[in-house]
Amino acid sequence: MAAKAKIGVLGASGYTGSELVRLLLRHPNVEIALLTADRRAGHAMGDVFAQFAPFDLPTLQSIDGIDWARAGLDLIFCALPHATTQLVIKALLAAAPATKVVDLSADFRLDDPASYARWYGHEHQAPELQREAVYGLSEMYRDEIRKARLVANPGCYTSCAQLAVTPLLKAGAIETDGIVIDAKSGMTGAGRAAKEEMLFSEVSEGFNAYGVGHHRHMSELDQEFSKAAGQEVIVSFTPHLVPMNRGILSTIYVRGSRGTSPEDLHAILSRNYAGEPFVHVLPFGKTPQTRHVRGSNMTFIGVVKDRVPGRAIVIAALDNLVKGASGQAVQNMNMMMGWPETTGLDQVALVP
Amino acid sequence: MAAKAKIGVLGASGYTGSELVRLLLRHPNVEIALLTADRRAGHAMGDVFAQFAPFDLPTLQSIDGIDWARAGLDLIFCALPHATTQLVIKALLAAAPATKVVDLSADFRLDDPASYARWYGHEHQAPELQREAVYGLSEMYRDEIRKARLVANPGCYTSCAQLAVTPLLKAGAIETDGIVIDAKSGMTGAGRAAKEEMLFSEVSEGFNAYGVGHHRHMSELDQEFSKAAGQEVIVSFTPHLVPMNRGILSTIYVRGSRGTSPEDLHAILSRNYAGEPFVHVLPFGKTPQTRHVRGSNMTFIGVVKDRVPGRAIVIAALDNLVKGASGQAVQNMNMMMGWPETTGLDQVALVP
Amino acid sequence: MAAKAKIGVLGASGYTGSELVRLLLRHPNVEIALLTADRRAGHAMGDVFAQFAPFDLPTLQSIDGIDWARAGLDLIFCALPHATTQLVIKALLAAAPATKVVDLSADFRLDDPASYARWYGHEHQAPELQREAVYGLSEMYRDEIRKARLVANPGCYTSCAQLAVTPLLKAGAIETDGIVIDAKSGMTGAGRAAKEEMLFSEVSEGFNAYGVGHHRHMSELDQEFSKAAGQEVIVSFTPHLVPMNRGILSTIYVRGSRGTSPEDLHAILSRNYAGEPFVHVLPFGKTPQTRHVRGSNMTFIGVVKDRVPGRAIVIAALDNLVKGASGQAVQNMNMMMGWPETTGLDQVALVP
Amino acid sequence: MAAKAKIGVLGASGYTGSELVRLLLRHPNVEIALLTADRRAGHAMGDVFAQFAPFDLPTLQSIDGIDWARAGLDLIFCALPHATTQLVIKALLAAAPATKVVDLSADFRLDDPASYARWYGHEHQAPELQREAVYGLSEMYRDEIRKARLVANPGCYTSCAQLAVTPLLKAGAIETDGIVIDAKSGMTGAGRAAKEEMLFSEVSEGFNAYGVGHHRHMSELDQEFSKAAGQEVIVSFTPHLVPMNRGILSTIYVRGSRGTSPEDLHAILSRNYAGEPFVHVLPFGKTPQTRHVRGSNMTFIGVVKDRVPGRAIVIAALDNLVKGASGQAVQNMNMMMGWPETTGLDQVALVP
Repeated sequence: MAAKAKIGVLGASGYTGSELVRLLLRHPNVEIALLTADRRAGHAMGDVFAQFAPFDLPTLQSIDGIDWARAGLDLIFCALPHATTQLVIKALLAAAPATKVVDLSADFRLDDPASYARWYGHEHQAPELQREAVYGLSEMYRDEIRKARLVANPGCYTSCAQLAVTPLLKAGAIETDGIVIDAKSGMTGAGRAAKEEMLFSEVSEGFNAYGVGHHRHMSELDQEFSKAAGQEVIVSFTPHLVPMNRGILSTIYVRGSRGTSPEDLHAILSRNYAGEPFVHVLPFGKTPQTRHVRGSNMTFIGVVKDRVPGRAIVIAALDNLVKGASGQAVQNMNMMMGWPETTGLDQVALVP
Repeated sequence: MAAKAKIGVLGASGYTGSELVRLLLRHPNVEIALLTADRRAGHAMGDVFAQFAPFDLPTLQSIDGIDWARAGLDLIFCALPHATTQLVIKALLAAAPATKVVDLSADFRLDDPASYARWYGHEHQAPELQREAVYGLSEMYRDEIRKARLVANPGCYTSCAQLAVTPLLKAGAIETDGIVIDAKSGMTGAGRAAKEEMLFSEVSEGFNAYGVGHHRHMSELDQEFSKAAGQEVIVSFTPHLVPMNRGILSTIYVRGSRGTSPEDLHAILSRNYAGEPFVHVLPFGKTPQTRHVRGSNMTFIGVVKDRVPGRAIVIAALDNLVKGASGQAVQNMNMMMGWPETTGLDQVALVP
Repeated sequence: MAAKAKIGVLGASGYTGSELVRLLLRHPNVEIALLTADRRAGHAMGDVFAQFAPFDLPTLQSIDGIDWARAGLDLIFCALPHATTQLVIKALLAAAPATKVVDLSADFRLDDPASYARWYGHEHQAPELQREAVYGLSEMYRDEIRKARLVANPGCYTSCAQLAVTPLLKAGAIETDGIVIDAKSGMTGAGRAAKEEMLFSEVSEGFNAYGVGHHRHMSELDQEFSKAAGQEVIVSFTPHLVPMNRGILSTIYVRGSRGTSPEDLHAILSRNYAGEPFVHVLPFGKTPQTRHVRGSNMTFIGVVKDRVPGRAIVIAALDNLVKGASGQAVQNMNMMMGWPETTGLDQVALVP
Repeated sequence: MAAKAKIGVLGASGYTGSELVRLLLRHPNVEIALLTADRRAGHAMGDVFAQFAPFDLPTLQSIDGIDWARAGLDLIFCALPHATTQLVIKALLAAAPATKVVDLSADFRLDDPASYARWYGHEHQAPELQREAVYGLSEMYRDEIRKARLVANPGCYTSCAQLAVTPLLKAGAIETDGIVIDAKSGMTGAGRAAKEEMLFSEVSEGFNAYGVGHHRHMSELDQEFSKAAGQEVIVSFTPHLVPMNRGILSTIYVRGSRGTSPEDLHAILSRNYAGEPFVHVLPFGKTPQTRHVRGSNMTFIGVVKDRVPGRAIVIAALDNLVKGASGQAVQNMNMMMGWPETTGLDQVALVP
């Protein structure tokens, strides 16, 4: 077999970072050559997450000291916070222009500098890279991702919604106004920052919406849905937190356009995903559960006829840490490196 | 103090039954004089739920042997399964016409015999009582409940939705088409039957919708919303199961009618519930969580402006076992017995 | 009715503080006259815990500005962190010597200044109050508590263990060496500090021991068990964290002394607690669950014969926030104020 | 590559059965050729657990109709209920004597027919196979397993306890009396039968012991511990249920014999497991958590010095469905088939 590709993970002490390490440890084509975690620099990965103690992994280091050119990495996953990310990637691609990057932050997801500035409150610090970056939802941008140096991995909520809705918009099969996306996520989607409202005793035995009316993920949805529909699409979107670790379920309310029936919508999605390894459309009338995909890179989609004439309910489920983040990132790596798209992503969902 | 009223609870071994006992044990005006549980007849309540072992309670008995006239009960709570209920209540009111009844099943919630037959698949067995029964959402039917002999306690999902939406429909403030109610419930709403899909390991760490497109609770919503609006209203409604015990949160998507703003909707709800002891409208833009009401008879309602022009998101939360079932039932009892409406319902929500 | 007693709660924004407010809001003899929370001074209690938004409560204030003499409080609950507490109570009792205090910290639980210094690493700052303080486990020190000005509310783990073991030691019924106490607690026992290891996603779906071999609660156990036995008793004690909010269950392994059988141990406990309102001894061979006492001030105790000859397993369960903290504190207040001991403590455990 | 081995799973609709399928789907040397589930015969595996819907798997069939000789299976995993199992395996080995069997029930774990009859209340129905069967804890019986036709996979509780204690007993390093094993398990250990006490709302937010003083697993512990010590060893063992899906944690209290220190015990375990791929001994004083091994075949063991002189606390954690059942079974298959022991068992524990 050929030499393994040398891979780095920036931000390995968060949840998407550790999920990347979990997946990469079992990926046959890669060697984990670099791990960073600024606050835990000098520690072993097994000190941060004892799960990794039995494995041989590089010591965590600080980003500051790294000589990107000498590191000689083939590909870097960047799981750093928003805004920091664009500066780090700018510096690393300047020093090591042949290194490929899959970025898991929101920094390179929006095409339009003005839209970025409006939603994030400041000018982008690497606008030329923003132009170069390819939006990394594999099922939608396969050709571009294969040729890309910098891929912007999509958000977990938006991946789930796009996989369900985008093919319907592209087909002109649903009305573009009045779409309602009611999304529910496990707690890992909120990251690993030590905040009071994320404590077990604040979360357990409760359920709530958050960011109602103004969640940042909406900008990404607007961009992709409008592209798909060929006209501006603005949806109602409400995220909620479920007392569980992993999983997103989106309940999506749509109206068929010009006589398109719920059965037609199901047929469109079924056809569209017939050959896709990581999207599974259920039989008409069946609905997915987050536990059906937990720990796997699968997305499950169901379509049901609403009793209100002309309306359908589309439900999609994925694991926010896998298909919604790190699994999608590995899928992008596979495509960027010219490997089979499913390599290292054959985990079967946990039961139970 | 006057003699305590003699109260019975039929179906005490289920979750709404046990919640009734929990509330009644601390109600100053009542004596729990009768408890039934057919499958556990002859056992102590503390054998079924050890929580009650320290308290002095009647032995559980079978319904069959009861002489309703001799029992001399002032009021009976009926927490029996659908369909059985109408036969039991028919018999007991025939034998003891002066006994008042609060029924927690769905049997007497629908006014229209034809609607009942359509949704439940058989003719009603006590149509004259169906006519007599008063729909028991206290905030909506106070005058009727006070005079009623038989009150049909509303469903948990429908109570939550009605408290948020009905005043808006009555005021003509929202469009009657395109209303979406995305509802999430804790597991106690599914009852205590030993089914595989209710096992801890099937529920924990997952989230799902169920009954999509055809849940029976919809008939009750149709009836009450259409009455409130003065025209037929059919909403999109999807129930979901949250891995927690108690709580319902409904996320409701509405469009203001004729220029009505989200702020106007908030003002209508605030005014409507200003004097209500068990409905609390949050400041505009704030949203409730199920944990804010857990263990209490409160409903919390919030209104937020959607970014889609003209649309608002209304979120309501209650404890499905208290305001959604047994607490509402006690509130109805208080009104039927001429006691202050809040008697015995002063539990503060658990934190945490 | 007489005027209500004026009560203060110091540290109202933590879990034991908020639980005190929950209980006091429904206590017929008290008025909540003062609430402090340094980091949230100036806010309403309902801003910190929306559960309290519907209630009329004093604005949170900082401890620093309070004139204890003018405040004219009858009794203060102190739910502040260790070490801070002794300074605050020293100052407040100097300024308002007639105010009674129930302290929920560990500051006044140890009698012996040397033991305090050894376990906590510094000299006690209020040794004269340490001498005055009465150890507040109601079932053990009823007479002293009734006359006390300053009561040291016991720890949650230690209350659970003492209620099960102390009567057996007093009776000389068990061997004093080789006692093993394996204790499991819900997460609220760890408090409300925003620490990474307390995040939902770090706690959910897992179980672990902590502080193995050296937990501070052991000093309190040593003191009370040695007093009870009339000789030094040092037990093996391991605390664990359960992914739930409330509850402690202690599984205790003992050997009967001089032919004392497990049945004898059960008889001793049953006799000892026959008249106690908040301790319930189950029939021999039955074991308690934390859910049997959740939200209530009850302790449930069971005794089982081990298959190893001469050995018994004693299991005790209580709600760490109620009988293990705030409920016990209210029970102490009732005794210090000369009220019936059960006043305001009649909450029935939640089912479910 | 050589042809894949043909594998059957009897009882595929339970939790250990489905976990076997999850692991076998990604095992490079096997083909899943047969799946049985009597109550679900004729259905697809994806109908029982939607997680498997995307995979190509044999239709579930009833055991009754199977011609074992014609089936031509290389190895069968038997995940059937106790007692049924011995009859099924007797029949299948009579018909297909060359097929190897890994049995996950308790039927073949006890060597001694009298002990079996005493604990299970009836004579063994296949005593000659009971003699033939090898006890399948890989780390203890590697040589025997490699040559075995019938392997009795050990129980989850007992595996966890044995991996921690057996090497200490073999070394004569701990006293054989007074050993206390306090074990805590996730709910999947209780299986998938629809029982009231396993419902989410009966389990969530609570913790309890069960089978106190008389759990059947004890017979297996007695057998293996006594063999290891060369004398009869009877331990105190109490199982508990944790509101989580997967994981067992055993807290084990021991006394070093003849001056053996806790550090010595740690050294014995470290040496013993130095080369083992699936047992990881933590540094002295560190303790494992169930989440460190969730979804993986690892066992983590920690040793801590107790403050009681001469005593140590040993804590072991494993995933009851993997190393405690199906992963151990695959490890046994690998050894029986002459494959590398770790094949198909490289799953990294989930974080989080």
